[in-house]
Formats: sequence, structure tokens, C-alpha cells
Amino acid sequence: MLRDVPVGGGAPITVQSMTNTPTADLDSTLDQVRHLVAAGCDIVRVAVPDMEAAATLRRIVEGCTVPIVADIHFDWKLALKAMEAGVAGIRVNPGTIGSKKHLEEIAKVASPTQTVVRVGVNAGSLEKRFKENKVREKDALVQSAIEGLKLMEDFGVEKLKVSVKASGVEETVEASREVSEKTDWPMHVGITEAGTLWSGTIKNAVGIGALLAQGIGDTIRVSLSSDPLEEVRVGSKILQVLGLGKEGPQVVSCPTCARTRIDVIEIAELAEKELSGYRAPIRVAVMGCEVNGPGEAKSCDVGVTGGPEHGLLFVGGKLKKKVELDSIADELLSEAKRLINEYEEGKDA
Amino acid sequence: MLRDVPVGGGAPITVQSMTNTPTADLDSTLDQVRHLVAAGCDIVRVAVPDMEAAATLRRIVEGCTVPIVADIHFDWKLALKAMEAGVAGIRVNPGTIGSKKHLEEIAKVASPTQTVVRVGVNAGSLEKRFKENKVREKDALVQSAIEGLKLMEDFGVEKLKVSVKASGVEETVEASREVSEKTDWPMHVGITEAGTLWSGTIKNAVGIGALLAQGIGDTIRVSLSSDPLEEVRVGSKILQVLGLGKEGPQVVSCPTCARTRIDVIEIAELAEKELSGYRAPIRVAVMGCEVNGPGEAKSCDVGVTGGPEHGLLFVGGKLKKKVELDSIADELLSEAKRLINEYEEGKDA
Repeated sequence: MLRDVPVGGGAPITVQSMTNTPTADLDSTLDQVRHLVAAGCDIVRVAVPDMEAAATLRRIVEGCTVPIVADIHFDWKLALKAMEAGVAGIRVNPGTIGSKKHLEEIAKVASPTQTVVRVGVNAGSLEKRFKENKVREKDALVQSAIEGLKLMEDFGVEKLKVSVKASGVEETVEASREVSEKTDWPMHVGITEAGTLWSGTIKNAVGIGALLAQGIGDTIRVSLSSDPLEEVRVGSKILQVLGLGKEGPQVVSCPTCARTRIDVIEIAELAEKELSGYRAPIRVAVMGCEVNGPGEAKSCDVGVTGGPEHGLLFVGGKLKKKVELDSIADELLSEAKRLINEYEEGKDA
Repeated sequence: MLRDVPVGGGAPITVQSMTNTPTADLDSTLDQVRHLVAAGCDIVRVAVPDMEAAATLRRIVEGCTVPIVADIHFDWKLALKAMEAGVAGIRVNPGTIGSKKHLEEIAKVASPTQTVVRVGVNAGSLEKRFKENKVREKDALVQSAIEGLKLMEDFGVEKLKVSVKASGVEETVEASREVSEKTDWPMHVGITEAGTLWSGTIKNAVGIGALLAQGIGDTIRVSLSSDPLEEVRVGSKILQVLGLGKEGPQVVSCPTCARTRIDVIEIAELAEKELSGYRAPIRVAVMGCEVNGPGEAKSCDVGVTGGPEHGLLFVGGKLKKKVELDSIADELLSEAKRLINEYEEGKDA
């Protein structure tokens, strides 16, 4: 449990992100956390680079509805300050904390404060001794993580998590899989330093997707050189497409080809935009022609398909009516919103 | 072999897309194919909805440097016309072609023309008989594909490929995995009707990535309700992040946090843009701070990392020099381009 959010043991997989405001700037940090939470973020991590940041943590914790995790590097005393401030968890990187003595000091406080400690190993900051003798990056990550967990267990920490991240998908997937075989602690998974919004999205979807598809990962963090909100959106979508996520509308739409009779791209984009934010788990189809159109539209809660002279509107698996080609988007959205209203009234009833 | 492009048998995994111009419009179709090829597309499929489209195929085939695959539905005679026009392959969907008799007519021409036939099954157009008795979608896809392959084998077709696609990631991944266990024919993989550019990118990356990570898939098609060029870009990136793709620069960059000292987002986006299109397999790091920055920058061919007063430029795993914070992007790009030039001169020599 990170405060009231369960991680591991079969609990729903959670989405994390990390603020990029100066942590010591309370207002902007609280504001960013609120945006992240509104987008579906379950756990928020904040960097604690110095004592000024650490001194702000208590007010951040008090001002947020989600568990706050403090990201600690280099200075073990920052970890103590963070735990005293009441954070739900800390992330320590054995590669930057360095000495066993300092890990032990952290463990001494983690135990009585019931702080969750993530042993977070990263390829960019591995201790030198793990990289000697041409050890492969993946093996070095695994060794460092397992040793770090063992140390923290021996020092009496009761709640641990673990992560092993590299900027390469293969290394991260292999290392995470090996760690998952060697320990039962909950795993935080993600690809680190994954790059820009576009290529990082693909890198994370492939890597995190491959792990989750194998049942590995209890909490995920998509890492993007972009607005942290994008990390939450991508993370939530990865969970949704694997059937592991929160509810909400999904748009099914065809890739368009020479057969396409309607502006699938525009209508699908519009539907995705107009229906985002709702919780109703409806599936909406936007299909260009008669090949897969009727089949896919029938399999969804509501769907339209283009035809040579008119479109077809399907609701609940049945053809409802023919529609004019130029009113297809309106017809689709009005049916979809009717279903969303029904769903919401049903929940309220 | 699709013309001169090998598929399966351990050959490099190829990227496909499909034109969305009217196939009968020769100029716009050839123009789109050229753009797709320039973006890295290995095989191009075109829809053949009618005889007018079929009549244009010969000139499309002659005007293109890549193998052309004709996408056939409903009318088996279109398949004959396409094969006579010299396409490298045809895709037939047993669910829309319908009768065994018509598949046999197609097989009779495929064999002497050495046309590759893809049995392409799609959840949106399954034959009714496979969906009876509440059979699961995944099982219906597998049954239809295996039966289709068996028929074409019995009818004497020598070169087959197979695909099973649903709009759901789990169904597609499970069905593709089962088919790969039941047959040795090369597999075309992808998620169908995957949605908009944003959500479809994630859906395909998760689904195709999960399959490729298990060694399943010989050729891929990312399906997006978007410009087909985006399908090629995303497909190529999926292969690249799994180490299965063509060469080219990769940007490693951190997600930014309260520690970040430089504008990582802007510099990483700029680097990705400026270095795209080159073939040199260099890795370029843009890192915000001293935690993972030096480690990651050293592991790349060239990298920069922010610091409190100045940045550090690493080349070939070694610190080259301190750089002013406001000239960090210029320094990075000039080193990266120098490495690209060296690589290209080395190849020419």
C-alpha cells in the first residue's frame, strides 16, 4: 500500500508520473500534481534534489489526494527528511546513494514510518563494480537490484518495490523479467530516457506492453521528454488496450484505403476528442466501407460505416438506420452521448 | 519472396502500408507509393474495389520500386485480374470471398503466376459459420485462417502468408500466437481498425511489439486512421526499438524533473528532427542533470548533460569538454553530424 493505493498482489496496475516543476515551488508543484491526477495519475513522484525541496514535501503531501513518492539521489539525509515529511514512498537508487551504511540509515527510518522503499536501479547510474569485467548491462541491472533488495530486507525494511530500467527496450524487458523471477516484491516498470513524445511513446508502449503481456509489472511509469501529462495519457492508454486499465470510451476506426467513402480520419479524431474524459466503457466504430465496416460496427456499442450513397448507423449490434454521408459524425456522436448518459444514469440509480 | 523482397525464413522483418488514394487514379497512387517508399516502406498494398482499379494495376506495378500487393474482397475475378497484371501478391479474405469454388479459381492462377497469396482473416468480416455457438472471436479467427491456408494448399498454391487481425490487442496477439504454432507459413501481423494516430500508435506498438518480442511476425502493418506515411514511421520505429529495424540515429533523452538544468524537451525534439533520415546508427543522449546524465551520455556515441553552471559534452564514451548551457544544442548537433559524416565517408571508402 502506498498510502491508500495498493501496488502488487493482484491489485489493479497503477499509472505513475513525475513532476518537473521545481519541488520547492509549492504552488506550481501542487498545480501540476492536480493536473496529473485529473488525467488519471495514481501515484506522483517528485524529485528531491536538495534540503529546500525536502522542506516543501510535507505541504505537498498534505495538499495532494494521491500518494507522493520522493525521488532521492546522492544524499541519504534527503531520504530521512522525506520520510519525516510523511511521503508514502521513497525511491532510492543504490547507484547514487552508494554506501551500505547510508542505505542502512535510510532503512532505520523507513521501517518505523512504514515508508515503501523502491530500489530503483538505472543503467545510467549503475555502481562501477557492477559494470566491471564486461558484464552485460542487463546482468548488471539485475545484480544491483537483487543486492539492493537483499540489503534493505536485511536492514529490516518491510515494504519494498523494485525497478530496473535502461534506455533500451530489450535490456529493460529482459532485466525486468529476470528480476521478476528472482523476487516477489512488486515491480515498477518502464523504459527510462525513452526520448521524445513520438518515439518515446512507441518505445514505452512496446516495452511496457511486452512486460505487462507477460504478467510483469504492478505499477508503470512512461518516461517521455514531454509534459508529464502526456506520460499519464500514454500510460493509461497502454493499460486500456491490454484490458488492464480504467474504463472509458474507445474508438475503433479503419486505416482508410481506396475503398473509403467517408472522412474516417476526421470523424475518428473528433469522436476520440468529444468522448474523452467519460467513464462509460463504450466502443465506438468509424469505418470507411462495406468490407469490415458492418462487422466491426456491429461488434461495437455504436458504429457507422460508409457506403456508396449513404452511411449505416449501428447501435447495440443492430442496424438502426441509413444516414446521409454528411451527417454521419453528428449521428454517431449523438448516439454515443446517449449511451454515455444511460450509463451514467444507471450508475447513479 | 514478394518480387525481390524476402518475407519469412529469418529474413529482416518488413514494413508495409496501404495507399488510400483511389487506385484507379494512377498518378496520385504512384505519388503516394513513392512517399511511402521514401519513408521506409518495403511492401505496398492497394485496394482493388472494382475493375477500373484492377485495370490500373499493371501500370502501378511497373511504376513502383517495391512489391505491390492487391487487396481483394467480394469479387474473385478481381483477384484474377490483379494476378494477370503482375502484382507480387494478393491478399484474399476468406470471409469476403466466400465460396471454396472461388478460392479455387484464384488458386489456379496464383500457382502458375507464382503470386504470393495472403490468407488475411479479419474479425470484422468473419464468415458467419465461424461465429456460431458463441465461439470466441480469437478462436473463430484461428479456425478461419487455418482452414483458408489448408484450402489454398490443397488447391496447389505454393507461396502463402497468413494474418489474423482484430481491433483488440489481446485477441489479435492470442490469435496470431496460435496460428504461428499451427503453421509454418510467414506471418503478417498488425492490429486492425486500431483508431486514431495517437491511440492507434499505442495500440499497434503494444500489440505488434508483444508479438515480435515473442518472435512472431515476418512482416508488419501498422493500421492508423491517419496518413499512411505515419503507419510507415510508426512501424519502422517499432522495429528499431526492438533491435529489428533499419539503421538510423536514436535519441535517448530523460523525462525531465525538478532536477533538470537544460531544455531537454526542446533539444531532444530538435535532435530527432535534425538527425532523421540519416542511416548512421548513432545514439545521441540529451540528459537534464547529473543523476543518470553522465552515465547515459557516456553510453551513447554523443551526449550532453545539464549541470548547475555549465553542461558537459561526451563523445565516444569520454568527457570532451564543458559547454555553455545556451550552446548545448549546437554543440550536440555539430558532434552528431560529424559522426554521421564519418560514418558515411567510411561506407563510401
